[in-house]
Amino acid sequence: MISSDICIIGAGPVGLFAVFETGLLKMRCHVVDVLPQVGGQLTEIYPGKPIYDIPGYPKITGEELVGQLMTQIAPFKPSFTLGERVEQVSRQRDETFLLTTSAGTVISARVVVIAGGLGCFEPRKPVIPDLNLYEGNGVAYSVRDPEVFRGHKVVIAGGGDSALDWTLVLAGIADKVTLVHRGNTFRGAPDTASRVQELANAGKLDLIIRAHTTHLTGKGKLNGVGVSLHGGDSLIIPADDFIPLFGLTPRLGPIAEWGLNMDKDAINVNTIDYSTSEERIYAIGDINHYPGKLKLILCGFHEAALMARSAFRFVYPDQRINFKYTTVYGINAF
Amino acid sequence: MISSDICIIGAGPVGLFAVFETGLLKMRCHVVDVLPQVGGQLTEIYPGKPIYDIPGYPKITGEELVGQLMTQIAPFKPSFTLGERVEQVSRQRDETFLLTTSAGTVISARVVVIAGGLGCFEPRKPVIPDLNLYEGNGVAYSVRDPEVFRGHKVVIAGGGDSALDWTLVLAGIADKVTLVHRGNTFRGAPDTASRVQELANAGKLDLIIRAHTTHLTGKGKLNGVGVSLHGGDSLIIPADDFIPLFGLTPRLGPIAEWGLNMDKDAINVNTIDYSTSEERIYAIGDINHYPGKLKLILCGFHEAALMARSAFRFVYPDQRINFKYTTVYGINAF
Ligand SMILES: Cc1cc2nc3c(=O)[nH]c(=O)nc-3n(C[C@H](O)[C@H](O)[C@H](O)COP(=O)(O)OP(=O)(O)OC[C@H]3O[C@@H](n4cnc5c(N)ncnc54)[C@H](O)[C@@H]3O)c2cc1C
Ligand SMILES: Cc1cc2nc3c(=O)[nH]c(=O)nc-3n(C[C@H](O)[C@H](O)[C@H](O)COP(=O)(O)OP(=O)(O)OC[C@H]3O[C@@H](n4cnc5c(N)ncnc54)[C@H](O)[C@@H]3O)c2cc1C
Repeated sequence: MISSDICIIGAGPVGLFAVFETGLLKMRCHVVDVLPQVGGQLTEIYPGKPIYDIPGYPKITGEELVGQLMTQIAPFKPSFTLGERVEQVSRQRDETFLLTTSAGTVISARVVVIAGGLGCFEPRKPVIPDLNLYEGNGVAYSVRDPEVFRGHKVVIAGGGDSALDWTLVLAGIADKVTLVHRGNTFRGAPDTASRVQELANAGKLDLIIRAHTTHLTGKGKLNGVGVSLHGGDSLIIPADDFIPLFGLTPRLGPIAEWGLNMDKDAINVNTIDYSTSEERIYAIGDINHYPGKLKLILCGFHEAALMARSAFRFVYPDQRINFKYTTVYGINAF
Repeated sequence: MISSDICIIGAGPVGLFAVFETGLLKMRCHVVDVLPQVGGQLTEIYPGKPIYDIPGYPKITGEELVGQLMTQIAPFKPSFTLGERVEQVSRQRDETFLLTTSAGTVISARVVVIAGGLGCFEPRKPVIPDLNLYEGNGVAYSVRDPEVFRGHKVVIAGGGDSALDWTLVLAGIADKVTLVHRGNTFRGAPDTASRVQELANAGKLDLIIRAHTTHLTGKGKLNGVGVSLHGGDSLIIPADDFIPLFGLTPRLGPIAEWGLNMDKDAINVNTIDYSTSEERIYAIGDINHYPGKLKLILCGFHEAALMARSAFRFVYPDQRINFKYTTVYGINAF
């Protein structure tokens, strides 16, 4: 069991900065994110795009900002559990919480800070009948180990970077790769798109554009993918695997079931300390709601600062905060 | 008369960032500060000191942060009136405001944003009887033009950088300079302190340490400064000028008289949009108060963002905000 003063759910920019603000007050954090990397929407959706409204940065990319935040919080030595989703939060008799992840990891903490953003990123699924019946039996939404597909017939669907990237990788491993794409141009990097086109021209993979997948065939185990060409024809492609790669979309997920007072997909908080309806549970960043709320990074930073002052009394019930300015007190790394 | 969408009182970090947030929504700003330079407390009190809690900056000095903010707001071409204090804010029939400064400058604006921090910086005055009677007749709290002191006998009091700096400068101009300092070490830069000591050793100036000024002599016009040595003796130093340089201290000043709902030295605001009790007047940064308020730079940044969304409807009553993310919409410079 992992034990910490504070457990932060979500390693987006706001969850990361919460490590800093609580660290200043000598509280230790464990951070959990379902994604395999830190940075939330910034790394998952727009790593290379410039953000212009981070105060003091006329321009900074999502990736750079996350890098800066990681450097900033390093003195407070946060620990991380990545690639696991927090499923349950349960309050114990001793006023701590036990949090359980999708992989069974258990974390004990006095204070829970939900910085879950728009929720967990989940694969965007195509609308195909019985798709879920084949999940794990031929249908996958990501590629963890390409070797699993060695010798297989694989159908990939999508037109963005990950569809293009995995088409290239698997073309060298699988028996046969077919890429099905609705449009006739790709959204992914032009370089990758032309390499896919070259391999298709050379007969190293099958490229079907202006087409979409319609249904799956097989009995329990997948053996074919139905494709409708926008010209009118349709066909069935023999396949051991179908990998639809239409990107990720956030879904609130388990947070909705923790009994917190909510407003649609957001957790209601007050603006005094961004606490939720449950004592010792705070919600900061995109996941919370209050009158005037803006889903901006700089707002989450402010919320983290106020949250930290409030959480202090649960971690150090007998102490008073005697910290004011970093310029005067420094940061007192752990 | 200067005319603008918004008049921002105070060019501290929060006032500056308010130019950015309102600029994103196509509102133009005029900024007024009583200090001769922008940056508020950061440039006035701790320009060279590192700040550690600006999100995304593991370390940045006050001066650097102000520089970054000036670059960030440059696309929105704010105009500035520096070195003048806003004395009056009066609401006109047409729902604009007229602001009047200490120098008689008049600014017309639809929205007023008070980002006045701790107030106007004023010289910290020593406790000496009748000091105010000599102000302008021998007593000054700053040196604007050193040439004014050519041939004079000058007494400077203080132990910080400005006392040391001006002692060095005036030693080359005045007939005689005496520096009186309470302690026996100086708070100012060690280099400067040793140059002052050298000049004193060489007889180029008089240095009286472990002593303080007690009273002033003269009839209407200053002619001497009484000094008490901590060893027990006291003396009167003949002087045309007495320049106490004990730093600046902020005083709320005229803001207290504008009829706003206040709590001690801060303006009460709500946390929906940081508006005051007067419609179209907002207060952000150190100057405001609400439950949970922290006087931190990052909090003022958040407040500026929410203020801007709310102010929009007064500047563009017939329009809706169709701006969400800078990453998506860019910044659309003026
Ligand atoms: C295209 C785009 C452009 C944008 N541009 C700007 C901009 O210019 N300026 C700006 O200020 N904002 C911008 N934003 C918004 C900004 O990205 C968000 O405000 C910010 O990411 C919110 O940070 P966060 O830490 O609250 O949440 P997120 O970044 O969403 O991070 C939340 C994290 O929580 C994790 N999580 C959720 N639930 C669980 C769970 N149960 N268990 C484990 N982990 C969980 C998620 O996996 C995620 O990593 C933009 C957003 C988008 C999509
Ligand atoms: C030693 C020290 C260290 C600090 N360290 C940190 C830190 O590490 N992190 C942090 O977040 N904060 C820190 N702070 C606090 C931080 O400096 C303030 O929160 C910040 O300056 C507030 O910005 P502001 O723009 O609201 O006000 P200010 O910076 O005070 O600027 C207000 C401006 O308004 C002007 N003004 C006021 N009234 C009028 C008027 N009537 N007419 C014209 N002009 C007027 C003033 O001249 C001033 O320039 C520190 C402060 C000090 C003193």
